[in-house]
Amino acid sequence: MLVVMKSHATPEQIAAVCDEIERMGFRPHALPGATRTAIGITGNKSGVDHGNLSELSGVAEVIRVSKPYKLVSRDVKEEDTVIRFPGTDITVGGRDLMMIAGPCSIESREQAFSTADQVAAAGAQFFRGGAYKPRTSPYAFQGLGEEALTIMAEIRERTGMRIVTEAIDQDALDLVADYADVIQIGARNMQNYSLLRAAGRKRKPVLLKRGMSATLEELLMAAEYVMSEGNYDVILCERGIRTFADHTRNTLDLSIVPAAQQLSHLPIVVDPSHGTGKRDKVLSMARAAVACGADGLIVEVHNQPDRALSDGAQSLYPDQFIQLMDEASKIAGIVGRSVPRNAFVQPADTVGAL
Amino acid sequence: MLVVMKSHATPEQIAAVCDEIERMGFRPHALPGATRTAIGITGNKSGVDHGNLSELSGVAEVIRVSKPYKLVSRDVKEEDTVIRFPGTDITVGGRDLMMIAGPCSIESREQAFSTADQVAAAGAQFFRGGAYKPRTSPYAFQGLGEEALTIMAEIRERTGMRIVTEAIDQDALDLVADYADVIQIGARNMQNYSLLRAAGRKRKPVLLKRGMSATLEELLMAAEYVMSEGNYDVILCERGIRTFADHTRNTLDLSIVPAAQQLSHLPIVVDPSHGTGKRDKVLSMARAAVACGADGLIVEVHNQPDRALSDGAQSLYPDQFIQLMDEASKIAGIVGRSVPRNAFVQPADTVGAL
Amino acid sequence: MLVVMKSHATPEQIAAVCDEIERMGFRPHALPGATRTAIGITGNKSGVDHGNLSELSGVAEVIRVSKPYKLVSRDVKEEDTVIRFPGTDITVGGRDLMMIAGPCSIESREQAFSTADQVAAAGAQFFRGGAYKPRTSPYAFQGLGEEALTIMAEIRERTGMRIVTEAIDQDALDLVADYADVIQIGARNMQNYSLLRAAGRKRKPVLLKRGMSATLEELLMAAEYVMSEGNYDVILCERGIRTFADHTRNTLDLSIVPAAQQLSHLPIVVDPSHGTGKRDKVLSMARAAVACGADGLIVEVHNQPDRALSDGAQSLYPDQFIQLMDEASKIAGIVGRSVPRNAFVQPADTVGAL
Amino acid sequence: MLVVMKSHATPEQIAAVCDEIERMGFRPHALPGATRTAIGITGNKSGVDHGNLSELSGVAEVIRVSKPYKLVSRDVKEEDTVIRFPGTDITVGGRDLMMIAGPCSIESREQAFSTADQVAAAGAQFFRGGAYKPRTSPYAFQGLGEEALTIMAEIRERTGMRIVTEAIDQDALDLVADYADVIQIGARNMQNYSLLRAAGRKRKPVLLKRGMSATLEELLMAAEYVMSEGNYDVILCERGIRTFADHTRNTLDLSIVPAAQQLSHLPIVVDPSHGTGKRDKVLSMARAAVACGADGLIVEVHNQPDRALSDGAQSLYPDQFIQLMDEASKIAGIVGRSVPRNAFVQPADTVGAL
Repeated sequence: MLVVMKSHATPEQIAAVCDEIERMGFRPHALPGATRTAIGITGNKSGVDHGNLSELSGVAEVIRVSKPYKLVSRDVKEEDTVIRFPGTDITVGGRDLMMIAGPCSIESREQAFSTADQVAAAGAQFFRGGAYKPRTSPYAFQGLGEEALTIMAEIRERTGMRIVTEAIDQDALDLVADYADVIQIGARNMQNYSLLRAAGRKRKPVLLKRGMSATLEELLMAAEYVMSEGNYDVILCERGIRTFADHTRNTLDLSIVPAAQQLSHLPIVVDPSHGTGKRDKVLSMARAAVACGADGLIVEVHNQPDRALSDGAQSLYPDQFIQLMDEASKIAGIVGRSVPRNAFVQPADTVGAL
Repeated sequence: MLVVMKSHATPEQIAAVCDEIERMGFRPHALPGATRTAIGITGNKSGVDHGNLSELSGVAEVIRVSKPYKLVSRDVKEEDTVIRFPGTDITVGGRDLMMIAGPCSIESREQAFSTADQVAAAGAQFFRGGAYKPRTSPYAFQGLGEEALTIMAEIRERTGMRIVTEAIDQDALDLVADYADVIQIGARNMQNYSLLRAAGRKRKPVLLKRGMSATLEELLMAAEYVMSEGNYDVILCERGIRTFADHTRNTLDLSIVPAAQQLSHLPIVVDPSHGTGKRDKVLSMARAAVACGADGLIVEVHNQPDRALSDGAQSLYPDQFIQLMDEASKIAGIVGRSVPRNAFVQPADTVGAL
Repeated sequence: MLVVMKSHATPEQIAAVCDEIERMGFRPHALPGATRTAIGITGNKSGVDHGNLSELSGVAEVIRVSKPYKLVSRDVKEEDTVIRFPGTDITVGGRDLMMIAGPCSIESREQAFSTADQVAAAGAQFFRGGAYKPRTSPYAFQGLGEEALTIMAEIRERTGMRIVTEAIDQDALDLVADYADVIQIGARNMQNYSLLRAAGRKRKPVLLKRGMSATLEELLMAAEYVMSEGNYDVILCERGIRTFADHTRNTLDLSIVPAAQQLSHLPIVVDPSHGTGKRDKVLSMARAAVACGADGLIVEVHNQPDRALSDGAQSLYPDQFIQLMDEASKIAGIVGRSVPRNAFVQPADTVGAL
Repeated sequence: MLVVMKSHATPEQIAAVCDEIERMGFRPHALPGATRTAIGITGNKSGVDHGNLSELSGVAEVIRVSKPYKLVSRDVKEEDTVIRFPGTDITVGGRDLMMIAGPCSIESREQAFSTADQVAAAGAQFFRGGAYKPRTSPYAFQGLGEEALTIMAEIRERTGMRIVTEAIDQDALDLVADYADVIQIGARNMQNYSLLRAAGRKRKPVLLKRGMSATLEELLMAAEYVMSEGNYDVILCERGIRTFADHTRNTLDLSIVPAAQQLSHLPIVVDPSHGTGKRDKVLSMARAAVACGADGLIVEVHNQPDRALSDGAQSLYPDQFIQLMDEASKIAGIVGRSVPRNAFVQPADTVGAL
């Protein structure tokens, strides 16, 4: 259910409607738009009798929502969601593309700093690095945990890049929300609803990866879980789906980009590294992602891919990432977007030294 | 890595090998077989230098394992795992099939008791019912939680059925492990590795459902996560995979039954309810599952499917479950198995009254 | 469009309706049922103005058909289609299961006779063998062509088995229709509509295999192509679909058996050989197919699988086929079906000699 | 098997090697490259004893080929295949992108001319239009047949566009090869090997669409069938695969573009119309296809999509195609390609009149 306020409704009227919704036992979500505010109602297991809501002053109409998703929908919020990062001029979901780069896992201080310096110098505004790794085998490298988080916090200080890293469970989530700037929920956890709810109670943006066999509706419903707890800063992410095709590790489904943008106001970025699983296809698919309108890219880059403890085969060399940034910038211009550049300059004495 | 002991190795020799493995910083898993004991070694991120192990007395050979799974494998344990339930003569993985029945969700005391009485009278030894429901929508019925667990504990007292119910996160897991007899891990959580590890530290059998797009190897690796923490009583479960086919909700992949049994000693049961999503196909596929060698069935039965809060369209009527038990028994006989019968007799005055 | 005749309509009334339909430029298909005759109308690209049809004597009602399939549907013909083979008491689609066995390809007279004698002695009423092979590579063995057809005609004489073999194009179709008893259309040609139409103009039953990524509706529409040309004896065949699962070559989708039987009156058989691609899973899945209600099985059997020119890895040894017939018989009894037995006795002096 | 000639080998030496291969009972395929000629050998069912071939003068080496494809492979021909159209300066597979546009079906002279004028004026060098339509239903519009071919031949005269149209069987193929410039083999016929062979005996380029569930290797093997008959001008085409995803009709698998270009010298174009099935996603995916390196696009355009007899929902309006050409040109420039422009100017008096 959705309460649409009149365009001239006052903050007091909006607050009064929210109070009434709470009094009815539900949860109001005020979503300001350019010309009007809509108030989503969640927590209603079945239909709500909305008789009195439509009577309140400032209310234009009360809409029963038939789609299973509400808060993620353009019906509720017509304008694109633009996410801002305090203390910076970085935005996600607006004209600027979100360029995220870094290694699959933080393996050591040296590896992380070397890679970070190079991707920051290439212009990346976001650094990714795994502290907690969901590995298919219990015996594989599982990440450095909090030690990796402290290394990434130092990288933020040094380079100005914002930090994106995955939380795999409640314990990791608390630490990730403390240290990082964007909480990543991985594909394997896209329907771990307890984790989604917990992420919805944090106050950091959430990067939500599509599950390997998730439909668009299921992805949107996973975002709805996060938003239903009050965290509206969700970034969707296509990272390849599981099909019979075997020339890539997954099949990158780029058509979900325009499809998601049509239904939802949330930004959507693309991961061509997991989406292909092969280094020699990452640049092609990164260009394609920008061309089809993605709001950003998340790319694996490693200073020495051949020695990576995980996903080396799909990690770019730093020089390839420079080329990717260059090509993405040019294509962004054609589709009315731009690639902002981190102003970090790698200290001359550390080039090659790290 | 696997240490195979000689057939006449003494308990002292086995203990000495385990001690040595722990001294090396790894974890030993002694797995007694009919003629010999094998000791699996886990915790080694890369190769172990096994020089001295092969020198210890009682050791027949030390095998490097190339497959990513170890403890789930028939290489480590040749004989079928047979799980026993203390205080009963119920077994899973032996000659007897594990017949699990009950509603998708515990909705009320009346609904649960009525359904339970009927499936117990039809012979079921295991009762299933959801206390915590992983729902695609955050606004859908999420289960009664601990209240449902207490209802099911009463049902165990009343009918003698063992209780199978899903744990969706760490908090639920602790309660489920307290109240229930089998901890179910759902398809959406098959790669929630933190939850798998936590289940591995409990001392109740785990029913592990195959993820919607999981390969057999990924299913076995998920079981390996549970076993690597010391809980060896894992029951695999096929519940349909996601394909393009649209005549059923999922595509039930029965061929995984003989495939899993070939690679692993763990029992594997089949869920024809979620596997088809349609009541009128459940009996056909239940027969097929028993015919191809499944170690049991998990079936949704509801006293009033048309009023179910979840999954009503795939729930059997109690009369259909009686027919299912009958057909399963006959086919079980042909493939060298049997369907044990719960001796519960529904009190005459409650038939139809509940 | 469908004209349903009254239950006491005379042959003359039926003929008059058919004449009128032809006069309107369409094609009538009289489909006699147990209590009434229905007349399907095809050839109408869009809606037909049926005003006068409903006025004709003997007409009960005229139904607009919304489903894209007509002739295959139970709406048109409620009773199961039972196909008979002239000069024999063999039926398909009734109580008796259609058991088809033989090698993937006819490789030589010796190989074919040896295999045929053994499967006939085991009770098979139908012999399969490829004369024209659709191979992924143009350089692989493509079949012996007409020579293979003559060998199979001899096998029919010798053993009494009816012959099932694939037609891959128009030229092959003409020969197959001359020599064989059942025309097989392979999975790769399920949407080769010219071939389907041509098969519809032959007067031999057609065994139509489901394409690797065909939905049930597409399979039924392919059958509709055959039937729209006047050949109503179509046998559907499930042979596995393409999915991400890699423990079998294809994923055998047994749930299509009850689903097809619900929508269509046509018989449906199952191919566990292609459906799994692995010999050690064929018996399990053959049992499962019979248990879920399939109208028959088509199984690859080779006298020397290890020397087969094609598909050796999925071909049964003759002894395994004897076991399959035995298990199928027992399960058939439980589901109200039976496995008829060919009375052929292998001449004592040829056992092992061929 | 592949015979690699020395870089200075004479035409006589090459001819002598071909003669020897024929004498051995096989078929030679001389494939001239920039610096050397390679001679592929086909027709060998199993290994060839190549002893004497390596002895012939001019021979550098004889290579046993392990991959199942030969002629399609970059191992046989390192340089990109560039297809030329006699009497024009049009090329496919070089720097210029192949831009193909037109309606799904030729429905009438007026519809075809109106659409053709508009796409030619927008710059398209190739016109597509269905004369023979493979339709799921036998009762749907099947195309105008030869009448459509004559209309398209007139369009070629009028606009200078080359004609691309599908052949669905042997009869259609003969006519298509007479009238059209490029023979299209549809997705449903990708493994109709008799048709592929027949197309291989024609002397017009073949546009080969990927089957709905075809792997890259199967697509290449289908091209190999065409080439094995001596027609080396094959253009691959990605048109979407069948997956569980339901936000588009098919899932456009763009990663096959770089994957095919790595293994094969053949050009590969992309069909974003069938690839998405939705008009509002065609432009996004067309841009993405060019960005990832496709050698061209095949796009459905209709003068009145809402009245189309087939596939109207995925057909662009002519104005949208103008935009597509513009965006494709800009992106082509970034990836080192260009979009050539047809010089056709729509006669002023026919604009809007047709």
